[in-house]
Amino acid sequence: MSQIETYITEHQSQFVEDLKAWLRIPSISTSPEHTGDVLRAAEYAVEQLKRLGISHAELIKTQGHPLVYGEWLEAGDKPTLLIYGHYDVQPVDPIELWENAPFEPTIRNGNIYSRGAADDKGQVMLVLKALETLFQVNGTLPINVKILIEGEEEAGGESIEKYIKTYPERLGCDAAFICDTHMPSPETPALITGLRGIIYTEVTVHGAKQDLHSGTYGGVAPNPLHALSIIISRLKDADGHIHIPGLYDKLRKPDHEEKEFWHRDPLHMNEAYLKEMGVSQLSGELEYPPLERASARPTLEVHGIVGGFTGEGAKTVIPAVAKAKISLRLPPDLKSKEVFTLFEQAVKEATPAGVRVEVANLHGGEGVLVSPESQVMRAASEALSEVYGTAPVHLREGGSVPIAALFDEVLNVPVLLMGFGLPDDNLHAPNEKYSLQQFFNGIRTVTSLLQKMASN
Amino acid sequence: MSQIETYITEHQSQFVEDLKAWLRIPSISTSPEHTGDVLRAAEYAVEQLKRLGISHAELIKTQGHPLVYGEWLEAGDKPTLLIYGHYDVQPVDPIELWENAPFEPTIRNGNIYSRGAADDKGQVMLVLKALETLFQVNGTLPINVKILIEGEEEAGGESIEKYIKTYPERLGCDAAFICDTHMPSPETPALITGLRGIIYTEVTVHGAKQDLHSGTYGGVAPNPLHALSIIISRLKDADGHIHIPGLYDKLRKPDHEEKEFWHRDPLHMNEAYLKEMGVSQLSGELEYPPLERASARPTLEVHGIVGGFTGEGAKTVIPAVAKAKISLRLPPDLKSKEVFTLFEQAVKEATPAGVRVEVANLHGGEGVLVSPESQVMRAASEALSEVYGTAPVHLREGGSVPIAALFDEVLNVPVLLMGFGLPDDNLHAPNEKYSLQQFFNGIRTVTSLLQKMASN
Repeated sequence: MSQIETYITEHQSQFVEDLKAWLRIPSISTSPEHTGDVLRAAEYAVEQLKRLGISHAELIKTQGHPLVYGEWLEAGDKPTLLIYGHYDVQPVDPIELWENAPFEPTIRNGNIYSRGAADDKGQVMLVLKALETLFQVNGTLPINVKILIEGEEEAGGESIEKYIKTYPERLGCDAAFICDTHMPSPETPALITGLRGIIYTEVTVHGAKQDLHSGTYGGVAPNPLHALSIIISRLKDADGHIHIPGLYDKLRKPDHEEKEFWHRDPLHMNEAYLKEMGVSQLSGELEYPPLERASARPTLEVHGIVGGFTGEGAKTVIPAVAKAKISLRLPPDLKSKEVFTLFEQAVKEATPAGVRVEVANLHGGEGVLVSPESQVMRAASEALSEVYGTAPVHLREGGSVPIAALFDEVLNVPVLLMGFGLPDDNLHAPNEKYSLQQFFNGIRTVTSLLQKMASN
Repeated sequence: MSQIETYITEHQSQFVEDLKAWLRIPSISTSPEHTGDVLRAAEYAVEQLKRLGISHAELIKTQGHPLVYGEWLEAGDKPTLLIYGHYDVQPVDPIELWENAPFEPTIRNGNIYSRGAADDKGQVMLVLKALETLFQVNGTLPINVKILIEGEEEAGGESIEKYIKTYPERLGCDAAFICDTHMPSPETPALITGLRGIIYTEVTVHGAKQDLHSGTYGGVAPNPLHALSIIISRLKDADGHIHIPGLYDKLRKPDHEEKEFWHRDPLHMNEAYLKEMGVSQLSGELEYPPLERASARPTLEVHGIVGGFTGEGAKTVIPAVAKAKISLRLPPDLKSKEVFTLFEQAVKEATPAGVRVEVANLHGGEGVLVSPESQVMRAASEALSEVYGTAPVHLREGGSVPIAALFDEVLNVPVLLMGFGLPDDNLHAPNEKYSLQQFFNGIRTVTSLLQKMASN
């Protein structure tokens, strides 16, 4: 370890420079005008893989953005670890709230600020730098690795899903490692034991055949924005209860240990949430502990409403059409397709007379529960204990990493969800950042993980 | 009348050419790059006034676009009529839906198509051509006239409001005539007996201190878009009832005659609304007749909601802030300031726990009720009967013409709201048009009106 520690310490600035160069590429996967940038970010990853010693590295074309794939299989009968990450990033608006330009990575107070710093380029780069360190120090890797980095994680992830389902044998492995999660604090390492699934929908309400003037038609005209408000308020009440008949029926009760953990709240998430959000009280289902609400309960959120006049000042239009983007987060017991059917039905029942509604399923993904007993989870637990001086807590995350469910179901291997993000990393928000200390500790942890997997 | 009719018939093409020349000037008052065009349209009006015989005509400078003013006061002790119109027009987007270029007036099927054709250049021009006809045939006018044409009607109308309040004595008159309304069909002349007032507000809901990721915070985060939906659904229910305590208290019951008219619906507005909007049923308070709902009941409409992610595809953001533009149309008994206070209170009471709300009053204007018994209304009724062969119906319009309330309150004179637009004139929309038959009938009606005012 001492040689490894020396290599990491001596190459810190180079590691950060390589990350910065990647962050400068605005690989926003949902934005057609950034298609070229997304490709550049993929090519940069291939280049990195080749430079660090993964001789077989390539771009895999898809119907969308390319996959980056690399493999090094010279460790004989040692285990094979499939490593996953994504090189695409979220859009940057509202851009005026950024303290530095989102694609000009800037270091302040030990953090690197940039879109994608934490989600997920920083976390992918630390894995690559761990591999580089092992190659440079030992001339080899302790285990076999396959690396798969996608460019559509923020845009539905259709291409990787298709690829995994089409070529499961090419991705054959003993365990899959997803480095796209976070830990509760820099002192509290975590392994993720559960993720929520998601359905992301667009609800479109149609009123009159054209926009109307409220002076002439106010009182007799259907107003799609008003109808949407009614629909949304009927789908979820002010106390956070979702009114979709059948939704809660298939929800299994969590086991005693998890329940006790959520109620005890040893990580003081109640206070943490209040502070991170800058609010005086939490919202949602007050009869459940905050940690359970944010990680293991179904949620329904409105992400955007489009329709009518949204400029400065006043225009008295009654729009012909209005749309809302609405998602549900789903504990692993709830399957996305079944929930979409229930949701669509509930929207139709909640729609007032006089308007017509359409419900589109933009994308969905399944949640997953991970056993802490697998070999890879034990190795990760030991590696984290070694680097952080304390054993990791087992947590569910409220977000959705549909790829985890795919690895679980299609490849049928244990999944390791270990990441080094922090709660205040501003994912999907202005001023996204990544802690450099976490970046370096991540490199240390991953070198250790691979070594422990080899010796077990 | 025969000489007048001869003059009108012989000069039809010149009248239309003079209107076309005015319509070619793109006097869009809300658009800074058209400031020069707005001025040119004002200068054209001054030129027209001088040419037709109004020797005193001038531009009045304001902090915004100029007022056009003219007066001819040589009719001794005959009444003085103040004539109002506006020379500015709405923007033209979406321009791709126009069949001819919006500022290249084109005649098709007896209509002149152009932005401003009906709102309001065509209606102002017919008044000017009526004055010209009287001057040319009689060498004089039968009554005194003052003419005031503004250039900010589509942009808030602040300058004219200030001018009227500052110089009420200059505008002293016996009656005010606003030529900016329409009639139900070419066979059904109308006099407007009521207009609704308006408050236009912006409701802003604040949640967390920054945008949040629904995976991490869904279940504990306040969602301003969800809160706005709840607020809006609580302010107005699916049956069109507004839940603002006190709002309906000051609403006077309409008199028996109006009630009977609305119920009888002799103009078949029920069917007309269905057809114009392309819907299978009307929305709103079903216990009131459509005509009453659209012209004499208070309404609450959402015109736009801003917040969160509104692009293509999916983004799982919980926005920190969301805004809604909401207006109320107010029957004349309800005063805009008082209603804003009630509205603000109701919004606060409707706001769910966990978010903070602000309510801004963007602008307001009063409604007006006009007595059909005034001398000018009687003269107008006779003039319309003469030209159209049938007595005018008395209608309220649901829109807001704040200048009418100003003339009523500040000048304290009877207001005549008589216009020659038609329901399918596409005001504020692509392919705005004005019927040439209505244009010529308008000239005939106004010459008759002035003569009748002189002899009463």
